[in-house]
Amino acid sequence: MYIPDFDDVRKAHERIKPHIHRTPVLTSSYFNSLTGAELFFKCENLQKAGVFKARGASNAVFSLSEEQAARGVATHSSGNHGLSLSYAAGRRGISASVVMPRTAPRAKKDAVRGYGATVVECEPSTSSREAVFAEVVASSGADFVHPYNDPRVIAGQGTCALELVEQAGPLDALVAPIGGGGMVSGSCLTLSNVSPKTRIYAAEPEQADDAYRSFKAGHIIADDAPVTIADGLKVPLKDLTWHFVSTYVSDILLCSEQEIIDAMYLIWQRMKIVVEPSSAVTMATILKNPQLFEGQRVGVILTGGNVDLKKLPWMAS
Amino acid sequence: MYIPDFDDVRKAHERIKPHIHRTPVLTSSYFNSLTGAELFFKCENLQKAGVFKARGASNAVFSLSEEQAARGVATHSSGNHGLSLSYAAGRRGISASVVMPRTAPRAKKDAVRGYGATVVECEPSTSSREAVFAEVVASSGADFVHPYNDPRVIAGQGTCALELVEQAGPLDALVAPIGGGGMVSGSCLTLSNVSPKTRIYAAEPEQADDAYRSFKAGHIIADDAPVTIADGLKVPLKDLTWHFVSTYVSDILLCSEQEIIDAMYLIWQRMKIVVEPSSAVTMATILKNPQLFEGQRVGVILTGGNVDLKKLPWMAS
Repeated sequence: MYIPDFDDVRKAHERIKPHIHRTPVLTSSYFNSLTGAELFFKCENLQKAGVFKARGASNAVFSLSEEQAARGVATHSSGNHGLSLSYAAGRRGISASVVMPRTAPRAKKDAVRGYGATVVECEPSTSSREAVFAEVVASSGADFVHPYNDPRVIAGQGTCALELVEQAGPLDALVAPIGGGGMVSGSCLTLSNVSPKTRIYAAEPEQADDAYRSFKAGHIIADDAPVTIADGLKVPLKDLTWHFVSTYVSDILLCSEQEIIDAMYLIWQRMKIVVEPSSAVTMATILKNPQLFEGQRVGVILTGGNVDLKKLPWMAS
Repeated sequence: MYIPDFDDVRKAHERIKPHIHRTPVLTSSYFNSLTGAELFFKCENLQKAGVFKARGASNAVFSLSEEQAARGVATHSSGNHGLSLSYAAGRRGISASVVMPRTAPRAKKDAVRGYGATVVECEPSTSSREAVFAEVVASSGADFVHPYNDPRVIAGQGTCALELVEQAGPLDALVAPIGGGGMVSGSCLTLSNVSPKTRIYAAEPEQADDAYRSFKAGHIIADDAPVTIADGLKVPLKDLTWHFVSTYVSDILLCSEQEIIDAMYLIWQRMKIVVEPSSAVTMATILKNPQLFEGQRVGVILTGGNVDLKKLPWMAS
């Protein structure tokens, strides 16, 4: 296992700069007064493909040799990573295959195809997904870009915290959502080098608290099929992300489904930006633990904005 | 009638800087490829109070003498100007009275009160509004800050285009929505000084096309009660804004209600920001007139983001 270092983050940043947005950092008097902290929101919902994952995917794609690039890239993801890898491959003009269950929403398949990638359908089961994916890689020789347990991806995600510190100045703490741990690992990698005193908190839904339980137990615990509105945070930690999480994270904070929805609504209403539930988990945990952040300068990573605008959670009630 | 000059804009910018956001300018590959233009979106939906009007209101409030400030400010507006004036008065710590129909939505009254201003209710008629407002001013000596036909307000709105040119560089054209003409007038004032070759287009709903008809007729035509989803754009031009519009605007472009809704949805979906229908009128008219902008650098002012998230227009269908 190759563990990326800070030099990889710096190189990643130079490599991907032409292909990503340097997203703005927003502030909100409203949330400052609500929490007693000074919050700096890094808006990766405004990133290419609507999510921070465009960073890691671009770093993976643009660090391929010409020879490998000619054979393309592949992944299995019906979510933001599939979209981001398609975006990055499209920028380089190489092929990308994304294995998705045939039952995945039409809009997600269309979005991947919109970037010029190929959707390869499988049955909605792990065994079918793995079989179909193995076939794609065997027949094409495509490079597998894992959504998070990949040093190129983690180094790419680390560029986000690097920009945040440049834009916001010194931070006492950072809060980022945790699913597989790609963003948190990249943030750990960067901050442990450029700002080692910044405490790093991972924010997770109670209903998908495998990272929390792993962190408390001291080893990886993977859940089978957690159910949460924060659909980007259902995946388990893997060896590479566990390394960073277990070494550098101060604590993992939990919140309920309703707290996620309430925080998401407040962010849309007060900050006028579209964030997905996974992003709102950060604000929900800060509102729940104000004593950890009061009087401090706190970075908050709003990870993405890919939601179905016709099915908003506060419309259900 | 005092016509503000560019020196007023510069002074306004210095005066209001501590009280407003220097809002980001976003770009979108998607909208660029859709239009063939290079678009620079000035995001005033991310402004204080959620709307560019915080600029003009802050300039008016912070240019008051101490003596006048002690008597406070007043306006009649159930919309964004009332909110912005309340915000600015709250920042200076002076009183603000906003006359609103008793039938106005509770949320709007609460938002004004949230900034510490006083809501004075009137009956939902012009005669009642004028009578109640006259009484408020007579009894308090408050300074009347008109939503747009006020040189302090126009100079304040002019700071938006000033920042946009600093942030985006040279522009071939600018598109801004037009209601009473405050934003368009401020933009004309600034651009005619710092970038006189930039063409200025005003964007207006077909169903509230009084500025369009005024522009074609050569004199102000005011409609009684236009009906449009772009509720910030229902008010008529007045003498001061007519001066700028008739002197500097290249053309006024119209679009339908459905085109406004479609553009608004696309902006939310692709740019991940919350904009109100009045803001989307800009994008709707650009999509309708691509030949005017193809191959050019075009500034687009997204004026505000104050919408009811529980009543979105695409939910109705």
